[in-house]
Amino acid sequence: MLIIGELINTSRKAIKEAVKMKDANYIQQVAREQLEAGANYIDVNCGTMVNNEVEIMEWLVDTVQEAVEAPLSIDSPDPKVIEAGLRLVKYGQPMINSISDEKERFESILPLAVKYNPKIVALCMDDTGMPETGEDRLRVAKSLYQKLTEAGVPDENIYFDPLVKPISAVEKAGIEVLESIKFIKLSYPKVHFTCGLSNVSYGLPNRKILNRLFVVQTMTMGMDGYILNPTDKEMMGAIYASQALLGLDSYCMNYLKAHRKGLYEA
Amino acid sequence: MLIIGELINTSRKAIKEAVKMKDANYIQQVAREQLEAGANYIDVNCGTMVNNEVEIMEWLVDTVQEAVEAPLSIDSPDPKVIEAGLRLVKYGQPMINSISDEKERFESILPLAVKYNPKIVALCMDDTGMPETGEDRLRVAKSLYQKLTEAGVPDENIYFDPLVKPISAVEKAGIEVLESIKFIKLSYPKVHFTCGLSNVSYGLPNRKILNRLFVVQTMTMGMDGYILNPTDKEMMGAIYASQALLGLDSYCMNYLKAHRKGLYEA
Repeated sequence: MLIIGELINTSRKAIKEAVKMKDANYIQQVAREQLEAGANYIDVNCGTMVNNEVEIMEWLVDTVQEAVEAPLSIDSPDPKVIEAGLRLVKYGQPMINSISDEKERFESILPLAVKYNPKIVALCMDDTGMPETGEDRLRVAKSLYQKLTEAGVPDENIYFDPLVKPISAVEKAGIEVLESIKFIKLSYPKVHFTCGLSNVSYGLPNRKILNRLFVVQTMTMGMDGYILNPTDKEMMGAIYASQALLGLDSYCMNYLKAHRKGLYEA
Repeated sequence: MLIIGELINTSRKAIKEAVKMKDANYIQQVAREQLEAGANYIDVNCGTMVNNEVEIMEWLVDTVQEAVEAPLSIDSPDPKVIEAGLRLVKYGQPMINSISDEKERFESILPLAVKYNPKIVALCMDDTGMPETGEDRLRVAKSLYQKLTEAGVPDENIYFDPLVKPISAVEKAGIEVLESIKFIKLSYPKVHFTCGLSNVSYGLPNRKILNRLFVVQTMTMGMDGYILNPTDKEMMGAIYASQALLGLDSYCMNYLKAHRKGLYEA
């Protein structure tokens, strides 16, 4: 299971302020907290800083790596920003977040996926726009898979993101994602999956409960990566419990560890 | 989704006392509370009263039906007790809980499944004992399906119970059940599923959380019936939320109703 901590993102007010003030301590504290809470990767996103995104990405990557020896997910649609981040990465295998099958984006980011051997999030989306059905997602995934692997990207590096829409707007949005995981896994058993969670529950009450249960549902279908807030105890608790129920946790050891850490105290 | 309220069971102390005292009011109150909380069926089980189980089943069935116009699940391994209950049922299609592929049990209960046209819980278990793998369950399910349908039981009346074991004792116990649902559904798309939940979490802490997430996992695979305590708000909340996420709840109406009823107040 790959947990990508999402909190270092300049769309969040506290991070934006810290970046503006060059407050390295705060950024480093958020990185440490996410790792301690169970994140395997730290996502770094400064996409709101359009005027100097490259420079800020470099500062963030250096700043985070002064505090923690963790692999980073370099999060931007801009190949210049991604490469600026990748060039500075020191620990483990980095991640590109993300490529898609939009022609311009694909062609500009592919060389980085070859040169730096990163894990890469591949959005199931092309120039026709957001996918509707599970079949749409499979079609885009097939196209991405073929082009990525032909260029030399190994199956194990690919993390398909089926792109989750709000069930309040599209009634079948959840089940279409679950089906697409099933279809893609049947075709490519060695690839991985990831997704963000805030969309699925948009417009509905009790969003945290819906997000958490959607994680349990997608894990049941084989999703094995999430970009989320790892300091959300109930979310992490649900992930450890699900792994135990799925037979992915020898002797329920991680589940029992999570229990002792207090993740299940109501 | 079929929610079978499990609370009227003489293995529970308060029910046992009420039966001994012929306290109809208490039994009726428990029946009403379960229906109001969202149960579709009321299970009636007096299996601990070995000396006069027939007589007590008759009293319980009459007592419950004086209070609520709900279909009943007649819960016993003893065909005499089941028939005593079925004979008195007044509302809707009753349920037999349960038949299995154990020779003696199968042969004695099959005639009741033909004569009364009930829904019937079919345990995936034969004279070789409890099933181990998903394949074991499929093998027993196939045998049961063939014999039940040959005798005239329609697919829609069959509720396979894959039989859940503790993940603390058998690491793959959960995933084997999930796989068996997938296999059985592929072979027989029109049958239904049900299970009890107390076993899966046996021997582990935070059992209610494990039980609840196992419901979400099994629903993701297509399970559509549970015997449980419907007055457990968090469990019912998880079921309504899962249905919304699975695209089984038009306009999320049941989910929003559950929200207004306060099921998601932490």
